[in-house]
Amino acid sequence: MAPYLTDWRGRYRGAARAVVRPASTHEVAAVVSLCAEHDVPVVPQGGNTGLCGGATPGVDGEAIVLALGRLNRIREVDADNNTIVVEAGCTLAALQAAALGAGRLFPLSLASEGSCTIGGNLSTNAGGVQVLRYGNARELVLGLEAVLPDGRVWNGLRGLRKDNTGYDLKQLFIGAEGTLGIITAAVLKLFPAIHQRATAWVAVPDPGAAVRLLGLMRRQCGDRVTAFEIVGRSALDLVLAHIPDSRDPLPGRPEWSALIELSDPAETTDAAALLETALSRGVEEGFASDAVIANSIAQASALWALRENISEAQRLEGVSIKHDVSVPVSRIPEFLERARDALRQAWPDVRIVAFGHIGDGNLHYNLSKPAAEDNTAFVGRTNEVNRIVHDLVAVLGGSISAEHGLGQLKRDEILRYKTGVEMGLMRSIKRALDPKGLMNPGKVLDVIARAGCGDEQI
Amino acid sequence: MAPYLTDWRGRYRGAARAVVRPASTHEVAAVVSLCAEHDVPVVPQGGNTGLCGGATPGVDGEAIVLALGRLNRIREVDADNNTIVVEAGCTLAALQAAALGAGRLFPLSLASEGSCTIGGNLSTNAGGVQVLRYGNARELVLGLEAVLPDGRVWNGLRGLRKDNTGYDLKQLFIGAEGTLGIITAAVLKLFPAIHQRATAWVAVPDPGAAVRLLGLMRRQCGDRVTAFEIVGRSALDLVLAHIPDSRDPLPGRPEWSALIELSDPAETTDAAALLETALSRGVEEGFASDAVIANSIAQASALWALRENISEAQRLEGVSIKHDVSVPVSRIPEFLERARDALRQAWPDVRIVAFGHIGDGNLHYNLSKPAAEDNTAFVGRTNEVNRIVHDLVAVLGGSISAEHGLGQLKRDEILRYKTGVEMGLMRSIKRALDPKGLMNPGKVLDVIARAGCGDEQI
Repeated sequence: MAPYLTDWRGRYRGAARAVVRPASTHEVAAVVSLCAEHDVPVVPQGGNTGLCGGATPGVDGEAIVLALGRLNRIREVDADNNTIVVEAGCTLAALQAAALGAGRLFPLSLASEGSCTIGGNLSTNAGGVQVLRYGNARELVLGLEAVLPDGRVWNGLRGLRKDNTGYDLKQLFIGAEGTLGIITAAVLKLFPAIHQRATAWVAVPDPGAAVRLLGLMRRQCGDRVTAFEIVGRSALDLVLAHIPDSRDPLPGRPEWSALIELSDPAETTDAAALLETALSRGVEEGFASDAVIANSIAQASALWALRENISEAQRLEGVSIKHDVSVPVSRIPEFLERARDALRQAWPDVRIVAFGHIGDGNLHYNLSKPAAEDNTAFVGRTNEVNRIVHDLVAVLGGSISAEHGLGQLKRDEILRYKTGVEMGLMRSIKRALDPKGLMNPGKVLDVIARAGCGDEQI
Repeated sequence: MAPYLTDWRGRYRGAARAVVRPASTHEVAAVVSLCAEHDVPVVPQGGNTGLCGGATPGVDGEAIVLALGRLNRIREVDADNNTIVVEAGCTLAALQAAALGAGRLFPLSLASEGSCTIGGNLSTNAGGVQVLRYGNARELVLGLEAVLPDGRVWNGLRGLRKDNTGYDLKQLFIGAEGTLGIITAAVLKLFPAIHQRATAWVAVPDPGAAVRLLGLMRRQCGDRVTAFEIVGRSALDLVLAHIPDSRDPLPGRPEWSALIELSDPAETTDAAALLETALSRGVEEGFASDAVIANSIAQASALWALRENISEAQRLEGVSIKHDVSVPVSRIPEFLERARDALRQAWPDVRIVAFGHIGDGNLHYNLSKPAAEDNTAFVGRTNEVNRIVHDLVAVLGGSISAEHGLGQLKRDEILRYKTGVEMGLMRSIKRALDPKGLMNPGKVLDVIARAGCGDEQI
């Protein structure tokens, strides 16, 4: 049972009565209704790649872990409707491959795509590097099948672009981290396969210039802009120091770089030429100081590797304190400036490692241990640092969890930032769908199991 | 009060204690909390352009009408974040203009855009002609402000592309037709303004060819395909007969035509050339038999007028029975064939007027009165015809209300097509948020006001 009782980073450890691995929706329903009958909590688990402990059971050992890995069939691909019907335990990579096999693109793409499952992706509303163009996981869903907390099956597997017949129930289960029911299958949107890609590494004077460059790129290239990532100097330096065969794409050690990718299903246009034109314009306008465009797939992969290896390089460097935050894209420069100033004041020698999906206003804003400091002392300042970073995010109208969810990690932290009205609404939804409080208890929000009545509900 | 007590088509007539016209969120909240205190039902009303009676009060005269037309400010435009913050009573046209003023596009576009309001568009999850590219109204929302049934204000006005901090509450109010609370303001997505458009009228051998042509266009032109409408011969003939200065764009009276539009924010590519290349390919493959590409804005408008005047032409022709249905795009040919055969059998001389957004699987499938038949006898067969059309839609996995909502018109009809599990979930949400049942009673679903408890809730 051990692998099911901890998260992959080993941050959380729990206990469970059993690990159950159903292979069909019917089996999931049978297990859940038995649990409902006997008041046994259920912790759904997909690929177990989450970062907030949302799939790890509590320490009390009261719950069962319901692992969905065997519920992994691709039920149908409808190329003319641009849809695919998949079961929750299907890995993201297998799903991407099935789409490609039908000449289509399933655009969700994450570092963990080889092991994460679509059920987990939907339950956490996963983001990734192509949200700028295709949206989060939520926006890729047309229909859902879910097992409700009492064990009944809701079949909402509709492959429709338009259906205005009442409340959009699928939205309740997406991003709920398994606290309202268990997603067992989904109808997902497919897109035309990509025929052209063009990738560039661009030196930008500062984050403000990066935001203006993004605007310019979207005006010049429209939806072909599918990725726009920003990488701070210290993040790039960590990769150059720790990842073999990595080299700085540009001279002069620019403080900030952007990784930009255009992609296009059309065979008839020239993405690289379009990218070059737009970037020259960007340089003229002063939004970029230098740029290199990959002239082979190998070069493009090398540029992407610089971005994708940041987390690994940070791990090799030592302990770090991480934040997954978002603010309006227009506030990113202000956030970076004010966060840096506030942190330098509280902690002069801390190393700020900032990078992320600037096109979505989503930054991974991490702190690496000063060389001198010891690990325990460093980690001991986590709450102090969270207060500085998260309070600033709130002031700027942002979110303290842009794409990773709440799980256990931020369940209580969020209480500081959401209004009583909003938490009340969330609790009333939880009690309406899961009155016994048996679905993934202790995650997202802590609700004491009771039947909510009347105006107590909100 | 009269204009507020009936819908614009005059299909529904109700009564009300009063019509209240608040000018701020604070005033809306004050009115709603007074109503909650005194158990007075509230019927929210925007531009009153709905097609299902969702904004018309009941005949009992118990409710007040809460008209949002004075709550119509544009609070903020953030061009760098591609967002606009607007109040519910703002007309769609005013919102589009404000976006354009900032060099941006707000893509929602409907026949009624001059008078419908964004609050109503969101409450009904409006569709329109650009859903193929930009999605329904729901997909254009980043944040909401809503007054809850007890009069409290939920401020969810976040302008974030990524925010995974619990349940996505805004989804509850979008498409709920005012039955869970009153939307007072929204943060909406903006897109780069369009610099190039190319429009074509295309003769297609049959609906199956149209579906394959759509696939070809998307592969060749990607997201530049922003509209793909299908128009049946009988629909086009009605326009040619009743609308002055309208002429058939192509010779040979083809049975089916498609109206295709490409649009692109990029100045550097040639949309018309791309459209021409893709259409020639379509002709080679046998998906199209003939095509004309507009070579001026006037010509493009003339082509669009043929599509947009169908409803008006139908009105001038006489009474009709209308259906707003959707099926998977891949099932459209089968739907059209089977629906025609079933109707011809039941009603040999009925005239089928079929057209719609084939790219979304959404057809407006209407019947016009046979010349000989009298109006009352014709309309008297509505239920019989609905049964034939809606049952077939259900068999094909479709929806009986693709974009118009349920309102009063389809509140009971939907009970035939949704499972008990799904209706139960909808009722439990309704009771959780509006335990007294005071928000737009009798619309979408009929819930007897009571506090749901325990497992009765689902």
